[in-house]
Amino acid sequence: MSNRAVGGSHRAAPVHTDPGEVSLLTALSAVADPVRIQLIRDLAGSADWTRSCSNFDVPIGKAALSHHFSVLRGAGLVEQRDEGPRRVNRLRREEFEARFPGLLDLLLHADTE
Amino acid sequence: MSNRAVGGSHRAAPVHTDPGEVSLLTALSAVADPVRIQLIRDLAGSADWTRSCSNFDVPIGKAALSHHFSVLRGAGLVEQRDEGPRRVNRLRREEFEARFPGLLDLLLHADTE
Repeated sequence: MSNRAVGGSHRAAPVHTDPGEVSLLTALSAVADPVRIQLIRDLAGSADWTRSCSNFDVPIGKAALSHHFSVLRGAGLVEQRDEGPRRVNRLRREEFEARFPGLLDLLLHADTE
Repeated sequence: MSNRAVGGSHRAAPVHTDPGEVSLLTALSAVADPVRIQLIRDLAGSADWTRSCSNFDVPIGKAALSHHFSVLRGAGLVEQRDEGPRRVNRLRREEFEARFPGLLDLLLHADTE
């Protein structure tokens, strides 16, 4: 199978981890970060596959953002796919909730301060 | 007020943070650690104030253990008091649950691997 994304992009397709295979520690480490909490909240407020990676209001550069998304994929929190030049996102709400009941609700509703 | 603990110890009394004043990020950072998850689980399996700091089966030195307990106190997870030469512990189960519903259950019941 080719690692090239379809649709004109030459980036490697994003690698995902199934939430069922994510350890508690990996999940907690992934969400114990203010930027990633913000990304998760933004995604929760958007319809699946509508939000592209360049369209988040976080005060960090492209490389750092790419790293954060990699961590979120590795924790089973986010699914990504390439649509032409855009990499669009989906929060894996149901699957992550099944693996770590209540954690996503906490992230979305608890005061961060 | 004196900082000296009563009961023969000359250590400073432990400083605590009320769970109601703990931020989500502080709580998540505190629990995203394998040693601290183990300490929380050990405490959950013991009656309040029965477990002293020297009585946990974790493969780390005294200074590191002291740091981990400091983080747990700062996240509103653990209360400590000195009884003579022993520093004994209590998991702040109800207060922490009220502040971050479901998080403690997740720590106690999810597979860590």
